[in-house]
Amino acid sequence: MKKHNFSAGPAALPQVVIDETIKAMQNFAGTGLSLACVSHRGKEFDAVNAETQQLFKELLNIPAGYEVLFLGGGASLQFCMLPQNLLNKKAVFLNTGVWSTKAIKEAKLFGEVIEIKGESFMSIPKGFTIDETADYFHITTNNTIYGTQLHADFDTKIPVIADMSSDIMSRRIDVSKYGVIYGGAQKNLAPAGVTFVIIKTELLGKVDRAIPSYLDYKNHIKESSMYNTPPVIPIYAMLQNLKWIKELGGVDVMEQRAKEKAEILYAALDSSRLFRPTVIGEDRSLMNICWVMKDEYKELEKEFLDFAKSKGMEGLKGHRLVGGFRASVYNAVEKESVIALVDAIKEFEAKH
Amino acid sequence: MKKHNFSAGPAALPQVVIDETIKAMQNFAGTGLSLACVSHRGKEFDAVNAETQQLFKELLNIPAGYEVLFLGGGASLQFCMLPQNLLNKKAVFLNTGVWSTKAIKEAKLFGEVIEIKGESFMSIPKGFTIDETADYFHITTNNTIYGTQLHADFDTKIPVIADMSSDIMSRRIDVSKYGVIYGGAQKNLAPAGVTFVIIKTELLGKVDRAIPSYLDYKNHIKESSMYNTPPVIPIYAMLQNLKWIKELGGVDVMEQRAKEKAEILYAALDSSRLFRPTVIGEDRSLMNICWVMKDEYKELEKEFLDFAKSKGMEGLKGHRLVGGFRASVYNAVEKESVIALVDAIKEFEAKH
Repeated sequence: MKKHNFSAGPAALPQVVIDETIKAMQNFAGTGLSLACVSHRGKEFDAVNAETQQLFKELLNIPAGYEVLFLGGGASLQFCMLPQNLLNKKAVFLNTGVWSTKAIKEAKLFGEVIEIKGESFMSIPKGFTIDETADYFHITTNNTIYGTQLHADFDTKIPVIADMSSDIMSRRIDVSKYGVIYGGAQKNLAPAGVTFVIIKTELLGKVDRAIPSYLDYKNHIKESSMYNTPPVIPIYAMLQNLKWIKELGGVDVMEQRAKEKAEILYAALDSSRLFRPTVIGEDRSLMNICWVMKDEYKELEKEFLDFAKSKGMEGLKGHRLVGGFRASVYNAVEKESVIALVDAIKEFEAKH
Repeated sequence: MKKHNFSAGPAALPQVVIDETIKAMQNFAGTGLSLACVSHRGKEFDAVNAETQQLFKELLNIPAGYEVLFLGGGASLQFCMLPQNLLNKKAVFLNTGVWSTKAIKEAKLFGEVIEIKGESFMSIPKGFTIDETADYFHITTNNTIYGTQLHADFDTKIPVIADMSSDIMSRRIDVSKYGVIYGGAQKNLAPAGVTFVIIKTELLGKVDRAIPSYLDYKNHIKESSMYNTPPVIPIYAMLQNLKWIKELGGVDVMEQRAKEKAEILYAALDSSRLFRPTVIGEDRSLMNICWVMKDEYKELEKEFLDFAKSKGMEGLKGHRLVGGFRASVYNAVEKESVIALVDAIKEFEAKH
């Protein structure tokens, strides 16, 4: 049976990414050795590292003055690395969900945090002003748990730091408007185990505190992301994914695909008799689409999950904080999977 | 041509580890999805995580009161996490090489360091006393660059913290004599991207400083090593490796194998006309065996490397700090590879 992987992360990857990674696990770059067993200092992996950085820059049109790093520890480690490197006095945080809340907690260990927060996480706060005397303004561009997303870059005089774990490479962004863009790669880019950090180098070296070596971005930049042994297999898989994105036409095409898929699914949910999408209006995520059973049908929740599973659909259970269902439709989820999901929704509705 | 992988790390893994990981990359635990694309919160990966921890405990005979964690960031991140969690006033460090030197640098950010160091890194200091008023005593059990190794556990009243990146699971240890055992897994256990930490939980929570969440071991313990998305593929491969070790007879058998392989190679080097091992005596590493050309034959260095490469031998170039050659003979390197290397040495000698 064809599987439809709607997992929130680690998540679907294009089949070619898996196939190419397996080939390299068998014999990497003609070395006769598995990708799992080669030195990261060898010329073959050095080329992979360099090409991945270069393609990252090319696809996002990253201007001069920025470096791209591939680190370990996940976005969770970045939550403390970022303020440790960049927070002198205070930072402004737009709190749009669970992940921004975690980032705020870590930043408070290093300075003052001005928090901008709405009444609920079901929409993104609007009409706020950013205190431009702060060191930076932190945002989480896509909220996997509540299914909201920022669809435009911010214009502000202070550096914008963005956690783009779950929408990187899914839409055009103007990198020059950001100081740092970072995220775990396991949603839209790679298998779990690698974290990307795009950083404007002129922002570094401006705090007085002593920073442990691994936590200091300058060390990773100096060694071109090889300060210590990098996660070789996830980086290789990420390169294959970037190649796939480029081949399909780049980030613009990913954005078109994302819009088309999300429109199909939201349209079905908006017109549904049994289901109701949890986010209404302009803040809807194109990556994580959340919905619940209408109150009068609540008892059908498990039945729908089982029904979808019987049709090869995985990862549809909503996060416990929201309940119901969530379809994560990252770059690698094909339109046919979304159509299959809509068909399943309609078939289930016809039965009840 | 049969390849012989003597890389220092990432390094050789048993073929069955690669094969099983590839199978899971194709279809993980009957899910119909690739290991690269499954949720770490699903029951299938949860079982992998639990089994890997359990087997780690079983193979090293880890007593109650210890937890096993699989983290990101490498041993380099541990260099700062450890003092941040455990160093109140002062710690004693046995400095036996490049990696201990790095660990010392990070510890100094958090407290006083008493350093025990010999005249050179070509042997391990002896006859020193450990200041037992210190918070802990830190050692690096095997030194990949200089090719020395500690072959016995220490008896001291204070917790021993050991970086075992390059000899974990290669010899019997008495875990009850340690407070923490940690290391990057990419030498003797897994592909790059996962770090193991065996920690005596009663040592935690005794420092006053605020610790960022990712850097606080208590958070990882609370979530059974799933505080954030773990490096799924490296952990899966590590489990396959632990199964392989168990099947062959456990750590005792690994120790016998290591001794046998090292004896074969050191014997050839000790009796060589052209070559000379760099470490003499009891501190010789069984994992990383270093040697150089005798002075009068220095100009043959590159020729020997090319000659070995022509026979399928990879990773024999010594670290630039020592020069010459290094054969890393971790668990997965078979005796036949060591014999092939000795044959190559003898054949090369016969020609010159």
